[in-house]
Amino acid sequence: MTTGKFIVFEGPDRGGKSTQANLLRQSLHEAGYSVLLTREPGGTPVAESIRKILLDPANRVTPRAELLLYEASRAQHTEEKIVPALAEGKIVICERYTMSSCAYQGYGRGIDMELINTANNIATNGLTPDLTLVFLMSDKYFLKRGEYLFSDRLELEKDEFRNKMRQGYKELVKKTPNAVLIDADNTVEEIHAKVLAYLREFKVI
Amino acid sequence: MTTGKFIVFEGPDRGGKSTQANLLRQSLHEAGYSVLLTREPGGTPVAESIRKILLDPANRVTPRAELLLYEASRAQHTEEKIVPALAEGKIVICERYTMSSCAYQGYGRGIDMELINTANNIATNGLTPDLTLVFLMSDKYFLKRGEYLFSDRLELEKDEFRNKMRQGYKELVKKTPNAVLIDADNTVEEIHAKVLAYLREFKVI
Repeated sequence: MTTGKFIVFEGPDRGGKSTQANLLRQSLHEAGYSVLLTREPGGTPVAESIRKILLDPANRVTPRAELLLYEASRAQHTEEKIVPALAEGKIVICERYTMSSCAYQGYGRGIDMELINTANNIATNGLTPDLTLVFLMSDKYFLKRGEYLFSDRLELEKDEFRNKMRQGYKELVKKTPNAVLIDADNTVEEIHAKVLAYLREFKVI
Repeated sequence: MTTGKFIVFEGPDRGGKSTQANLLRQSLHEAGYSVLLTREPGGTPVAESIRKILLDPANRVTPRAELLLYEASRAQHTEEKIVPALAEGKIVICERYTMSSCAYQGYGRGIDMELINTANNIATNGLTPDLTLVFLMSDKYFLKRGEYLFSDRLELEKDEFRNKMRQGYKELVKKTPNAVLIDADNTVEEIHAKVLAYLREFKVI
């Protein structure tokens, strides 16, 4: 039985997810809530071993194997850490969850989205967040970085990949229940206030 | 494009799969066919790393993570070895494939069969065998071993698991297109002749 609340922080790297997740944990803790802050792959021995396989460039992991390895890691993290904490009534804040596979493997690598949704569902046994906050910096800021990186072919490819993911996250927010976009250009304090406002709006607190 | 033929050898351990697979390879090779003999997890570096995770008792892999790790390993083996060999027109003989997950994780561990079929489909991109040969020793032989092992609780559990799998394989043969049961009690020569007869019947050769 799930009696706690499940909040997911999503978005590309360097959008301030970790900073905000830590701030939120502190605020909730001070307000008397019992909180678990975790992030995929979640630091379980199984997940760490899977991570090593994914990061070893010698491995040449095929796209489907890559998807399934991420999902195996997600299954272990969900069953071992998230589900028990929710059963204890905790507020679970998790950095990255199913939406990351949709953004990276789906929009980024072009794997069929229905396939990813199915794999996500197997891995999580259908556990969905009560609230997903997607942290995204503005197009203007992004384009400025894009132009700067334009000179290098590899960096350009990375940039195109990042752009696909970015657009992907925007579409995913529209399609996902209980998901909202957070403008990551504002100050840390402004964003934190916005996060707390959303938690109240979605009745997490 | 798949132009070759894909034969899968299935069944519990010690049913003679490897012996028969090697004999078949030799026969086909002598008859002038180009053959790839392989077995899951297939010896790719990725699959070997996954195998290590699954076999380490310290890992306590959750059932869904276990399923997804086997599927990741299957995806890598299928994309890296089976599909290219079929594209070259080879006859591929593979020990264990999707039916093993149905028998072990499904009938053995009780994971939902629809979920396993979906995961199998993601891993293989829908590639199904032209012929699946399931090697099973007779009930009589099995029960004799069962009685012998009855004294030990752990061995009894293993025996019950084996029995579930055995019954599972029998049901799976009925439900799977192009799958046949092979009586593994006969002599090596008799079984080999039967295997060749089925290859002709299913127009593999």
